[in-house]
Amino acid sequence: MKTKKEEQMKSSLHELFLDELKDIYYAENLLAKTLPEMAEASTAAPLKKAFQGHLKETQNQIKRLEQVFKLLDEKAEAKKCDAMEGLIKEAKSLIKDNEAGLTRDVGIIIGAQKVEHYEIAAYGSLATLADLMGHTEVKVLLGETLIEEKATDEKLTEVALNFVNEKAAAE
Amino acid sequence: MKTKKEEQMKSSLHELFLDELKDIYYAENLLAKTLPEMAEASTAAPLKKAFQGHLKETQNQIKRLEQVFKLLDEKAEAKKCDAMEGLIKEAKSLIKDNEAGLTRDVGIIIGAQKVEHYEIAAYGSLATLADLMGHTEVKVLLGETLIEEKATDEKLTEVALNFVNEKAAAE
Repeated sequence: MKTKKEEQMKSSLHELFLDELKDIYYAENLLAKTLPEMAEASTAAPLKKAFQGHLKETQNQIKRLEQVFKLLDEKAEAKKCDAMEGLIKEAKSLIKDNEAGLTRDVGIIIGAQKVEHYEIAAYGSLATLADLMGHTEVKVLLGETLIEEKATDEKLTEVALNFVNEKAAAE
Repeated sequence: MKTKKEEQMKSSLHELFLDELKDIYYAENLLAKTLPEMAEASTAAPLKKAFQGHLKETQNQIKRLEQVFKLLDEKAEAKKCDAMEGLIKEAKSLIKDNEAGLTRDVGIIIGAQKVEHYEIAAYGSLATLADLMGHTEVKVLLGETLIEEKATDEKLTEVALNFVNEKAAAE
């Protein structure tokens, strides 16, 4: 039998877990709205393509989060995520402050990698919490998204390094 | 001889690089102000210790950034970083919303790992840019900080996993 203290801890951890899920649900929806703008503002074809691909992935990740809420018997709700608001504001400034071309592309990659790292940290924590609370199926779903976010970050590094090599070759 | 277009690109990349340096300089200074609060709000001794250690490291990273500005013959200036403002606001909410104890500690770790991942993305991009622009010494300095940020993130995961194991052992 569980003690009252253990029950309280379980309930407060559940609240924290739920709050973090609502935070990333907000963040993913905001990102899905912004990705077409990032694709549009990119000059290099591989970068445009990367953002278009990540939009589809993000839409799927949103559905996956809705599945997580359902598995937990909770309503899918978004809670304003100040960090993602700031990250998107920064990414938009990088677009606004630079004319179309290589520098803007590099700026967009920087902004996008910061967004990806926010998501990597968020899904990493959520997967650990799901494990701690015994939500095995939920942990698997969150883990799938975590792998995708890491792959997107690596893809963006690859695109950035290609810029570096092209630049070096042109010198 | 370089063409006018190449010169323009070099100059706009330098501006982007400098802007990103000012962004992380602001972010590190804001973090240095907040870390004592995070250490104070933590319950678990290894977590408190991790934050106290990271404060010293952050202060050193600020000095390293000042060295970078100096090497570039630029003034060390901070530029408001909306993303770090949002990240710190989130971390403070996680403290405010939870009473001292395990749940708050888990919340603080989540907030701190999001901050670390912002820095990992920022220093990763800065090191790549420094490489692209031929600032070898600057790249080495930024690379040193990048390694430290990754180690801090791993340390926090380790502390979090210890919570999980202790919790599992208690059941």
